[in-house]
Amino acid sequence: MQAIVKVRGELDGTEIQTVEVPKVGTSDVLIKIKTASICGTDVHIYNWDAWSANRIKPPLIYGHEFAGEIVEVGSGVKNAKVGDYVSGECHIACGHCYNCRTGLAHVCKNTKIFGVDVNGIFGEYAMIPANNVWHNDPELPPEVCSIQDPLGNAIHTIFSADVVGRDVAILGVGPIGAMAVSICKNIGAAQVFAVGRKNTYRTDLAKKVGADYVYLAPDDVTGDIMDKTDGKGVDVVLEMSGNTKAVTQGLELLRAGGTISLLGVYADSLTIDLSNLVVFKYATIKGINGRLMFDTWYRMKGLLKNERIVNDMKTIITHRFKLTEFQEAMQTMRSGNSGKVTLFPE
Amino acid sequence: MQAIVKVRGELDGTEIQTVEVPKVGTSDVLIKIKTASICGTDVHIYNWDAWSANRIKPPLIYGHEFAGEIVEVGSGVKNAKVGDYVSGECHIACGHCYNCRTGLAHVCKNTKIFGVDVNGIFGEYAMIPANNVWHNDPELPPEVCSIQDPLGNAIHTIFSADVVGRDVAILGVGPIGAMAVSICKNIGAAQVFAVGRKNTYRTDLAKKVGADYVYLAPDDVTGDIMDKTDGKGVDVVLEMSGNTKAVTQGLELLRAGGTISLLGVYADSLTIDLSNLVVFKYATIKGINGRLMFDTWYRMKGLLKNERIVNDMKTIITHRFKLTEFQEAMQTMRSGNSGKVTLFPE
Amino acid sequence: MQAIVKVRGELDGTEIQTVEVPKVGTSDVLIKIKTASICGTDVHIYNWDAWSANRIKPPLIYGHEFAGEIVEVGSGVKNAKVGDYVSGECHIACGHCYNCRTGLAHVCKNTKIFGVDVNGIFGEYAMIPANNVWHNDPELPPEVCSIQDPLGNAIHTIFSADVVGRDVAILGVGPIGAMAVSICKNIGAAQVFAVGRKNTYRTDLAKKVGADYVYLAPDDVTGDIMDKTDGKGVDVVLEMSGNTKAVTQGLELLRAGGTISLLGVYADSLTIDLSNLVVFKYATIKGINGRLMFDTWYRMKGLLKNERIVNDMKTIITHRFKLTEFQEAMQTMRSGNSGKVTLFPE
Amino acid sequence: MQAIVKVRGELDGTEIQTVEVPKVGTSDVLIKIKTASICGTDVHIYNWDAWSANRIKPPLIYGHEFAGEIVEVGSGVKNAKVGDYVSGECHIACGHCYNCRTGLAHVCKNTKIFGVDVNGIFGEYAMIPANNVWHNDPELPPEVCSIQDPLGNAIHTIFSADVVGRDVAILGVGPIGAMAVSICKNIGAAQVFAVGRKNTYRTDLAKKVGADYVYLAPDDVTGDIMDKTDGKGVDVVLEMSGNTKAVTQGLELLRAGGTISLLGVYADSLTIDLSNLVVFKYATIKGINGRLMFDTWYRMKGLLKNERIVNDMKTIITHRFKLTEFQEAMQTMRSGNSGKVTLFPE
Repeated sequence: MQAIVKVRGELDGTEIQTVEVPKVGTSDVLIKIKTASICGTDVHIYNWDAWSANRIKPPLIYGHEFAGEIVEVGSGVKNAKVGDYVSGECHIACGHCYNCRTGLAHVCKNTKIFGVDVNGIFGEYAMIPANNVWHNDPELPPEVCSIQDPLGNAIHTIFSADVVGRDVAILGVGPIGAMAVSICKNIGAAQVFAVGRKNTYRTDLAKKVGADYVYLAPDDVTGDIMDKTDGKGVDVVLEMSGNTKAVTQGLELLRAGGTISLLGVYADSLTIDLSNLVVFKYATIKGINGRLMFDTWYRMKGLLKNERIVNDMKTIITHRFKLTEFQEAMQTMRSGNSGKVTLFPE
Repeated sequence: MQAIVKVRGELDGTEIQTVEVPKVGTSDVLIKIKTASICGTDVHIYNWDAWSANRIKPPLIYGHEFAGEIVEVGSGVKNAKVGDYVSGECHIACGHCYNCRTGLAHVCKNTKIFGVDVNGIFGEYAMIPANNVWHNDPELPPEVCSIQDPLGNAIHTIFSADVVGRDVAILGVGPIGAMAVSICKNIGAAQVFAVGRKNTYRTDLAKKVGADYVYLAPDDVTGDIMDKTDGKGVDVVLEMSGNTKAVTQGLELLRAGGTISLLGVYADSLTIDLSNLVVFKYATIKGINGRLMFDTWYRMKGLLKNERIVNDMKTIITHRFKLTEFQEAMQTMRSGNSGKVTLFPE
Repeated sequence: MQAIVKVRGELDGTEIQTVEVPKVGTSDVLIKIKTASICGTDVHIYNWDAWSANRIKPPLIYGHEFAGEIVEVGSGVKNAKVGDYVSGECHIACGHCYNCRTGLAHVCKNTKIFGVDVNGIFGEYAMIPANNVWHNDPELPPEVCSIQDPLGNAIHTIFSADVVGRDVAILGVGPIGAMAVSICKNIGAAQVFAVGRKNTYRTDLAKKVGADYVYLAPDDVTGDIMDKTDGKGVDVVLEMSGNTKAVTQGLELLRAGGTISLLGVYADSLTIDLSNLVVFKYATIKGINGRLMFDTWYRMKGLLKNERIVNDMKTIITHRFKLTEFQEAMQTMRSGNSGKVTLFPE
Repeated sequence: MQAIVKVRGELDGTEIQTVEVPKVGTSDVLIKIKTASICGTDVHIYNWDAWSANRIKPPLIYGHEFAGEIVEVGSGVKNAKVGDYVSGECHIACGHCYNCRTGLAHVCKNTKIFGVDVNGIFGEYAMIPANNVWHNDPELPPEVCSIQDPLGNAIHTIFSADVVGRDVAILGVGPIGAMAVSICKNIGAAQVFAVGRKNTYRTDLAKKVGADYVYLAPDDVTGDIMDKTDGKGVDVVLEMSGNTKAVTQGLELLRAGGTISLLGVYADSLTIDLSNLVVFKYATIKGINGRLMFDTWYRMKGLLKNERIVNDMKTIITHRFKLTEFQEAMQTMRSGNSGKVTLFPE
């Protein structure tokens, strides 16, 4: 089969190769991939940045977002069968550490991520543990099902706070930020303020999927948002930019007793006036990663029963490529002038 | 001024009378009523049923749902001024009992309700304590602001459970049931099943404001809902019919670990199989009344920023009468062939 | 090995037999039992009541509460090893149903309970799935570790409400009720009112482990408790008697906005005035069973770091028998004049 | 009457003066002070640091912690009467801002604090609004009731997390840290690790009131605590030192999914590795101040029903002075070699 392989630890180290179809273990399933999609993590691996150099061991088939059909199951598998239309949670949790046993499997101490620590799904076929299988709603197209991993991130972040009927600032308008805008508006947020830092492609996209107000960084974001919230500030901040300046800005925007949830990965340290921005403000800060396994997935399935949300997801998928056009797809993603970029093996 | 007065304790005991405009106390406000609306409680008072006979002391101006403009404020009032566009929370809480001091003012032990225990707002003017004033969004029409009391009931009930992305059964499709349908769908419930018992007028209304499926009681409600939830049952039941049979049905429909919230007033006792329907099911039952003072009001203000919700509320207001047409308005409300019925003093 | 076997479906159908030591499967462990204890469920099986007749398939080794040492592990086991000092959660969950995937494994739809649906631990050795193993604190004696299943029930029930610094009524003072009294007092409940119905042996025991006030049913329980809570009622009711009259009493005792949690199994239907006891009271009713897998176990381990709690548990274990004295042990348990009854194979 | 007055904005600016007994307003009460106690805030005012210079307007009677007896009530007061044994919440909230109307009165936007913004209670008599009155349990001595303000801080912080049966690190062992140690142990925390930075007087005190382990900063705190928690880290950190280094240390000590609550006032900015210490750790950070009005007070009343807690509070009150010995009392407090310091007007 054909697959996208990181063959060498360097920027030009990604190749399309012909490899063996994986052999299915006792508790695994083999999936024929219908759609895959590119995550920011894949861009890191492609770029071979410091994080990748430290964690990735080439050769590796990467990619972890997909939808497909099961074509083979291991002998011990009980929860899936050939023909099932599925996606998959990319965190392979150990099942027996403290985190796994208390509802925190998404931060399992022994976790392995497929497409990062073991071979992933950028290929015609992929093998994953049956425990990681998610059964898709047959009414949803594969491209929408493929992006449930990042959509799950967005939903996990949103539900760590209380956004329904509340004012929400979303800092960072990449694909996950845009998803968050759509979900917040479709679950009745009062006003959604979306703040970008780079270009208008993505603030335009945020606007299309429902942001009430969009800003680029040089705008007087804080002043305007304080005005539009009667001087109170927003009830919730969703920080999805990975920029520490946005964290400070978010805390300034936040009302007393509000919540700021952080999904970003921050290259820099944050320097912060704890007394005024956290203690006296009675603020809550939450660090978020992954998705609840599998409560977030069930909630997502319910949300995707709403046609408006499905349509927004199709809008956020701005580009569709063949798997063999991977290099072009990756350049599109790296340009910043895209929403979600999807890949089709056939 | 003209006002609707319960003059005698009997079915024919309601009259339109000319009465004095109330005199404003130190901490009160006087409001010129723009729109009032009829609550189920008002029907009870009109009908002079057992509850009314026990609680109401005629003569009484009744009514407690309204929107209007402040025309006078008491000397000690700091949170309102002449010209403000307001509605009001009808529970006058004491402010110093245990409930009032711990966020449960809506169940204050010493509560008085205007339109029930003291004069209400079915008149050209009404006086209420300044503490009970709610400032409306100027962009909303008075008829929508007038129905915030029952809409607040619906929202309070909805937010006692976790409906976003979840399957919800709403039992009872009177005006509050219809409001609950609209809110649940507009905040991303997966599937909303609305169950009526009497006539199709109200199930049709529930359908119009977004119910995915509507049922009349003789239908095989349970079987169909179990099918549509893959045999799991609904995540949440909102019981708004006041019928104890619906409570049992609701518990049967509920998934393990789900929540059923009860807003109804139940004339009969409930007989229930606690072990199978509650204990083994790990179910939660919540009794709800009133609205959180004032967290529910703030959330409602945020939800009403959503145009879809405002439009649904206008759909649910099926009838509009002059205040002087009160008798006809009340007959419409009593017929069951209506949604919300509103009154306009001018 | 010797084991206690339900050999026939009748009251006299329990025998001590010599049976084969179980063979360990790939993902199982074999445990040498140091202490076992008798649960109310075991009494049902012994008595061969309606529930047992419907569920139990003799011959069956029963019993599910124990502490012991692992003597053999299956080839696929990663979370346990020979020599480990362990107890076990008796619910064998499927791991892939909705409940298992959302933190509700204790109400797994496909659950099997060892000692009920498959062979249990009343023997010299017992085999359980490795996933069900709980590692005990080596400083705790086996008899205390053996009773963690019912203690976990008590803790699960207690933590479904908010008891710290609050007034709590505990209805039912069997062994689990006594455990609840101890835990509530040792985590700072304000006042604990323990209500029994049968004899003073168990109210005396409740008093010994910290109940501030104990009552037998003919006492004017409600009047006295209302007095001692300044007319407000208790914040929390823990219903552990399985008597529907106690549920009604509990709701009468409950303050507005309070929580009543039900651990009992109720033979009769409950008839209840929903409006006054639930809706107007803004009450929450929670059905409880099992223990959170495994959050309750971790919290229990933490609580058992407190010497006062460990000492109370030793007080609640009123009787200690050899395994071969099972018939006498069971008669003691059935008499009602006991706390927890434990068994020692050697 | 005699009172402690900040007469001038300087270190030597505190004098004992004879002043008029305050005149009671319509909604106020006059209290004869039985015991007062010195807060860290009073030390700031005494020292005339930057914060004081910015906020305090001499002359001012300071002090806000007390217990006493009501000797006069305003004509409009309904919730208190002459002879009542009371203490008081020092935040005078406006009652009508967003925060006040949604359960956040302790961070009211228009708050005034008595002893800071208006005259306080370091005198023979003091006047406070009736809304701020708290009725004490008559069985408690005035010195224990006097320290409910800081004890309420500790309790508010503790209940912002989940400490029962959990491992807890308390950073900072001043009087509030010592109170937190006592409460955590008395509500069943598994292990309490108390970390001081300055002297052994206060770590000794922490040990006396129940800390399982105490540390002074140069110790290898992190290594030892990680060992004692099996490498998992603590479930909860209560940061009460006001030192930003402790915040970083606290986040390092915290397990995945844990909560760190910050009660301190931080002179310096915090610089922090957000990705590793918050996001990947799935940590929650909460800023805390004041006490819930009045839920924390009710919970505190319940906790103070426990004799062990009352005795610990008496241990934490290390010094007792006459009000006229104020200068000596303050020097004791400033030395760091004290727990709580109390004052007696008579």
